[in-house]
Amino acid sequence: MFKKILIANRGEIALRVIRTCKEMGIKTVAVYSKADVDSLHVRFADEAVCIGPAPSSESYLKIPNIISAAEITNADAIHPGYGFLSENAKFSKICEEHDIKFIGASAEMIEKMGDKATAKATMKAAGVPCVPGSEGILEDYNDCLKVAKGMGFPVMLKATAGGGGKGMRAVWKEEDLEDAWNSARQEAGAAFGNDGMYMEKLIEEPRHIEIQIVGDSRGKACHLSERDCSVQRRHQKLTEETPSPFMTDDLREKMGKAAVKAAEFIKYEGAGTVEFLVDKHRNFYFMEMNTRIQVEHPITEQVIDYDLIREQILVAAGVPISGKDYYPKLHSIECRINAEDPYNGFRPSPGVITNLHAPGGHGVRIDTHVYSGYAIPPNYDSMIAKLITTAQTREEAINKMKRALDEFVIEGIKTTIPFHRQLMEEQAYISGNYTTKFMEDFVMDEKYKDED
Amino acid sequence: MFKKILIANRGEIALRVIRTCKEMGIKTVAVYSKADVDSLHVRFADEAVCIGPAPSSESYLKIPNIISAAEITNADAIHPGYGFLSENAKFSKICEEHDIKFIGASAEMIEKMGDKATAKATMKAAGVPCVPGSEGILEDYNDCLKVAKGMGFPVMLKATAGGGGKGMRAVWKEEDLEDAWNSARQEAGAAFGNDGMYMEKLIEEPRHIEIQIVGDSRGKACHLSERDCSVQRRHQKLTEETPSPFMTDDLREKMGKAAVKAAEFIKYEGAGTVEFLVDKHRNFYFMEMNTRIQVEHPITEQVIDYDLIREQILVAAGVPISGKDYYPKLHSIECRINAEDPYNGFRPSPGVITNLHAPGGHGVRIDTHVYSGYAIPPNYDSMIAKLITTAQTREEAINKMKRALDEFVIEGIKTTIPFHRQLMEEQAYISGNYTTKFMEDFVMDEKYKDED
Repeated sequence: MFKKILIANRGEIALRVIRTCKEMGIKTVAVYSKADVDSLHVRFADEAVCIGPAPSSESYLKIPNIISAAEITNADAIHPGYGFLSENAKFSKICEEHDIKFIGASAEMIEKMGDKATAKATMKAAGVPCVPGSEGILEDYNDCLKVAKGMGFPVMLKATAGGGGKGMRAVWKEEDLEDAWNSARQEAGAAFGNDGMYMEKLIEEPRHIEIQIVGDSRGKACHLSERDCSVQRRHQKLTEETPSPFMTDDLREKMGKAAVKAAEFIKYEGAGTVEFLVDKHRNFYFMEMNTRIQVEHPITEQVIDYDLIREQILVAAGVPISGKDYYPKLHSIECRINAEDPYNGFRPSPGVITNLHAPGGHGVRIDTHVYSGYAIPPNYDSMIAKLITTAQTREEAINKMKRALDEFVIEGIKTTIPFHRQLMEEQAYISGNYTTKFMEDFVMDEKYKDED
Repeated sequence: MFKKILIANRGEIALRVIRTCKEMGIKTVAVYSKADVDSLHVRFADEAVCIGPAPSSESYLKIPNIISAAEITNADAIHPGYGFLSENAKFSKICEEHDIKFIGASAEMIEKMGDKATAKATMKAAGVPCVPGSEGILEDYNDCLKVAKGMGFPVMLKATAGGGGKGMRAVWKEEDLEDAWNSARQEAGAAFGNDGMYMEKLIEEPRHIEIQIVGDSRGKACHLSERDCSVQRRHQKLTEETPSPFMTDDLREKMGKAAVKAAEFIKYEGAGTVEFLVDKHRNFYFMEMNTRIQVEHPITEQVIDYDLIREQILVAAGVPISGKDYYPKLHSIECRINAEDPYNGFRPSPGVITNLHAPGGHGVRIDTHVYSGYAIPPNYDSMIAKLITTAQTREEAINKMKRALDEFVIEGIKTTIPFHRQLMEEQAYISGNYTTKFMEDFVMDEKYKDED
């Protein structure tokens, strides 16, 4: 087992990793930028090394500084957290060259999954369903019709030079295809001077549902069921839950199998997530694979009772996994508490937290690196806490989240607490009948506004 | 279901009940003494009624004031928490007379279990093992020998007028009995002017292990396995865990069955705890029954995933229980954080908490009513927080407790955090081989002292 792990990250995930290391009896090294000197991850690690000024490019992304910190402190492994260098093939490779175990994917794996076209081709080869589409540009209308009939309606015609919805047409039945083809080409030609078109299957009422997997050094993988991350704003996840309210036993079995197949096909080692889009007919399509721990991993931990960071460390140390899949026995929801003003376009709201009181009690978990008196630097991601509630049923988990949000006091800055409080009362959320389009029409209600 | 519940208590348990009520959509009424006006239970309840000045006899124990508060606010049920009026038969009866549901045991049940002799006689009748003993005073040495042989060695001879260990003899084998009989009688006669002797079975290396039960209005009961509360100081529990490190599947089965038998024999309704002494041979003996929720109930919740306060409320509302028993799937430990100075005989340390930062993350639960800036009144129990860690194994739960205790910051007062931190490093604790005698030789080590 590793003796000392350097955590190449900041904020709650750095603290998250330090906690598990402490519990495993592994020493920890924090690295920090000058802006993060007062952060809890610096305080709770056994050692801490300053790696540069605030801009991430000068510190958390500066590979030589991090490698130096690991060498100076004699760390035998690096945990990259999420973001920053966690999916950087070069960093993974350099760690390996320096004989420091990278607790994450190999450079080859990151490269394979980091490029979308390569990832999709690999998944196709593994037999994992991908969003069907034309192979490149459609030759003419006949080709267009053939491809459409091949994948089945509805389809989406897209301009190869497109953007902003121009030259894009959703087509629901064959008799509308020719008109759409002509008008989209005309529009694209006028807008981009290029009327080349391609086609993709239209995903109706898409949901973002991902499968957590763990693979070991023997090439064996298992899945830990799904997380529904459909509540997103500009592709930023706001809240996640497991099980997905849209899930069925049959679909979970199929998606779980596909994710395990994908992981075993590429001999994936470590914790990873296979993200899928699921349409309203419960067809699912590979979107991308994240070769790292996810922000939302705690909800999986809550329903399967295992510590995923511990699993990452064990697998990286060569311990084989049991190979059995895990199914949720409870319901868990995570709300990302961001230092943002939901009444002002979710604009970041850094500053000093003048008072903080966290909720507690049965079924409540909080992961945070902030505290009363902490100054949130303006340089980083605005997430300051993850509030997770877990209960026997979805309804109970929602009710628990409401009362936990009501108890949560964060003064001095604006946060997304009012947003989550409102979300938990939204009919579409309560019914579980929400898609990735949910936030498009969302408007904050004044009644959830903080009094201060 | 109840529309509004009055919580006739204070501190963390009042907050605990309010939280579950909120999650169940039930309105809450807090009652408070003048000393508790700044307490969180007052802030988080829907309504709050001041019921008198600080001495409990003038407020939390003042039945007319509490009944008035319930009537003024139209509460249809009262949750008594633990302590105060939770096992007061008169209060239970008065609630009933006022058509307010008492979420606890009936007056009859409280009376039956409140008097030790009656409780023991009832349990004997139910076939639950009790500590064997002579029926009253031993007539002579022949009677003494007969009783001793009947219950088997070792036995404890005790002076009926005794105290302070005088006239008390542990006897391990028959050939030592006569000498012990003579010398103990002589000692008792000299010390108390009364040489009457009685005999009890000697409990070797006693452990305090209790079984959580729930009974419903149909007279059906189930058990939720055990809690080991052997780490006690002057009969005050300091830390509890489940499963008990001393437990076997066979013993759990037997103790669970005995507890269910006891509950069903008396048609017990609600949540209750049957406390047993367990000797080193794993014989178990009924000690007492608590007809209320226990301080240490969260560790049971953590390993069975159910909310016990919710169960209490459901059962009180007449909802039948499933009837199946629950077994721990995880390991959970609770440390009671008291405002006491463990380096000074655990002397109470009330005062203002100038800074509070609670630990968080995977497997950590905190139940507390205090916060940064809160002034702990000197009038009440010194417990200010319960820190609970839960993990796959006992070793992991201990390691998690260590790191959580290390993160816990409470400034301005002394607390028992250093005690628990040391306890988690004690060999007897780590090995699980501790009895109720454990604290007798315990000495605080300076190295766990807070720096402030």
